[in-house]
Amino acid sequence: MRDVTTLVKEIALEARQAAYSLACVTGEQKNRALEIMANRLVSQTNALQTENQIDLDAAEKNGLSEAMIDRLRLTEARIEGMAEGLRQVAALPDPVGEITEIKPRPNGLQIGRMRVPLGVIGIIYESRPNVTADAAALCIKSGNAVILRGGSEARYSNRAIAAILSQGLEEAGLPREAVQFIDTTDRAAVGALLKCNAEVDVIIPRGGKGLIQRVMEDSTIPVIKHLDGICHTYIDRYADPQMAEDLAFNGKMHRTGVCNATETLLVHEAVAAQFLPWIGRRLTEAGCEIRGCEKTVELSGPDLPIIPATPEDWDTEYLEAILSIRVVESLDAALAHIEEHSSRHTEVIVTDIHSRAMRFLREVDSSSVMVNASSRFSDGFEYGLGAEMGISTDKLHVRGPVGLEGLTSLKYIVLGKGQVRL
Amino acid sequence: MRDVTTLVKEIALEARQAAYSLACVTGEQKNRALEIMANRLVSQTNALQTENQIDLDAAEKNGLSEAMIDRLRLTEARIEGMAEGLRQVAALPDPVGEITEIKPRPNGLQIGRMRVPLGVIGIIYESRPNVTADAAALCIKSGNAVILRGGSEARYSNRAIAAILSQGLEEAGLPREAVQFIDTTDRAAVGALLKCNAEVDVIIPRGGKGLIQRVMEDSTIPVIKHLDGICHTYIDRYADPQMAEDLAFNGKMHRTGVCNATETLLVHEAVAAQFLPWIGRRLTEAGCEIRGCEKTVELSGPDLPIIPATPEDWDTEYLEAILSIRVVESLDAALAHIEEHSSRHTEVIVTDIHSRAMRFLREVDSSSVMVNASSRFSDGFEYGLGAEMGISTDKLHVRGPVGLEGLTSLKYIVLGKGQVRL
Repeated sequence: MRDVTTLVKEIALEARQAAYSLACVTGEQKNRALEIMANRLVSQTNALQTENQIDLDAAEKNGLSEAMIDRLRLTEARIEGMAEGLRQVAALPDPVGEITEIKPRPNGLQIGRMRVPLGVIGIIYESRPNVTADAAALCIKSGNAVILRGGSEARYSNRAIAAILSQGLEEAGLPREAVQFIDTTDRAAVGALLKCNAEVDVIIPRGGKGLIQRVMEDSTIPVIKHLDGICHTYIDRYADPQMAEDLAFNGKMHRTGVCNATETLLVHEAVAAQFLPWIGRRLTEAGCEIRGCEKTVELSGPDLPIIPATPEDWDTEYLEAILSIRVVESLDAALAHIEEHSSRHTEVIVTDIHSRAMRFLREVDSSSVMVNASSRFSDGFEYGLGAEMGISTDKLHVRGPVGLEGLTSLKYIVLGKGQVRL
Repeated sequence: MRDVTTLVKEIALEARQAAYSLACVTGEQKNRALEIMANRLVSQTNALQTENQIDLDAAEKNGLSEAMIDRLRLTEARIEGMAEGLRQVAALPDPVGEITEIKPRPNGLQIGRMRVPLGVIGIIYESRPNVTADAAALCIKSGNAVILRGGSEARYSNRAIAAILSQGLEEAGLPREAVQFIDTTDRAAVGALLKCNAEVDVIIPRGGKGLIQRVMEDSTIPVIKHLDGICHTYIDRYADPQMAEDLAFNGKMHRTGVCNATETLLVHEAVAAQFLPWIGRRLTEAGCEIRGCEKTVELSGPDLPIIPATPEDWDTEYLEAILSIRVVESLDAALAHIEEHSSRHTEVIVTDIHSRAMRFLREVDSSSVMVNASSRFSDGFEYGLGAEMGISTDKLHVRGPVGLEGLTSLKYIVLGKGQVRL
């Protein structure tokens, strides 16, 4: 048996080769491949479910939780959903080859930029098997080859899905090697992939904080990542009270286990005495635990079970029905709290005053900054990107939802008539 | 004495604080600071030259070459040149705060993007002391704090320049900590800086390949880098002969020690017998050594001293008056050679046929791809960026010349009227 480093290197080299051809095919060809993949996923539902059952049996044997086993399960509806996802990606405009305005220079050179694929994208994920299809589709559509490394608990399911995607490429006349699946449970495979600088252009980890940290530390390849989602909603003293309540409640409780849920509510002290009992009651009735600063405890009234917050609360991504609340004395104090504790994902101000909204927009350094909207809107579909690979909390290359554009870059093109430098 | 890790961490924290204020100041304030810096550099010429003399004396004592000592020297003209550079950066438009088109979503949310600084930029350089002023000016103008780590041979000069820049910031009412200089000869300082993830947003190394490689391997912070400049000029079978000769000659010989010089000339075999003797003679007469493939040797004629190329030649950045030449049988073969050997910096096709030019533009995956122009034009000033921090051979974030825009990123802004997710 080949050692895992050799195996990964071979895979990466094949992907590199495939990327070279894929970069220049027409949008039509890519769309056709995606359609074929979608049809094949559906027509091979039984075969997929047979492979999936191997993962499910192993999961049960290994004592995985009911919730985790459910996430693994490929029902007919979920397979149909994956196929639908591929068709939606096919329907998006092709980002590759777009040329931005070409401008003349004094010497007559015409200079502009052209959007091109990144090349080879490595995706390391822990999540549901549908990520295999979703992520690969976005890579293919943006002209990139993809190397997939899923979690071992979904190995058989992921492999079966990846095989169908490769078949789809082949049937459409594209290189089947543009979708690569690292088919080993050897954990060293990830380490090997993270060192394939010459072949892989970017690594996108999708999973828990442990995975992301490891990738960040070990990778010599650039990484697009989403680390934390500690999102803040700030209720300004000039907020509309009903809107403030709705946005705070929706930001936290619309869905709690997601990165764009509000984790900390900041409330201007001028409105805290009025606002806190309202929102506190609504949250408590909905089953949300509140961890408040001293003033929050004091101003919420004796009826509400507010737990005193500890300093750690301001740096915690709960991902469940828990909200920390802090009373701040000013917009400046809110901005300072956010600068110190935000994970730079999404921050919201609720205010009716234009100048305060503009200051918040300008000064908060997060991937999404919102005025009078729920933090839950921070999402590629909601932004109209059509699909997303995840949400980047990095500052370089792409911030916020990563759609097709985030998987491309711009190169300079220069059109001359024989100009030389003097 | 504090240990170097603590020192660097403190510097990084100060820079982080300063970045927060600097991100939101007006363009006018930044320009005023740059003007003051420029004036102070000139008015303190004597003081600068005194510090510079310490470096020059040490350089002589340490036996540095005449060329290296000359690069270190701060003449009056060079100090005036640095000041002029700062004034030119002041004259550029402020990139920060620009809002791209805001588009409405079906639910009434208005979504767009705003250009913002990256935050804290660490610059590790080996070059001339003027980089201290040039690099800092671009960072300040783009709203970023900067941490400077120059070579030990220019320590006194760099420190004196950095001090003047900090004074300029202070006089303009901006945080003087936005320009930081790591003032130690301890080489561990670089390692410490490369681990300051929480404080530093991007590292830009400027220097030889050894430095860049080390930074790439050790940094846990994203890096914008320029690794190699192995640029190709391809003479197509449909090239205008005179234009082909001029572009090949200019690409190599206009200046040889620079990254955008042509290192390999590819010549279509249909024109090789006519073209090679011409260009060979012109290059040889100008003192250029030629390393050619078998066919190049054969077709150049017996009069020209062509050295047979070895496989290493195709992967070598000569940075001197040496050119490798290879005869290729087709445009496809040229593209394949470039895909295999290019450092993805700059590639040129010389052709009169539109479809071949377009294919080259589309298929070559380099930061700059040119038709009928000298590779020497690959440069921020020539592209109209007004100034450049270097040329990125990376694919993420910014490719090619890095101007002010490359030192910023885009965040999403969302304007609502109280919308919640349903």
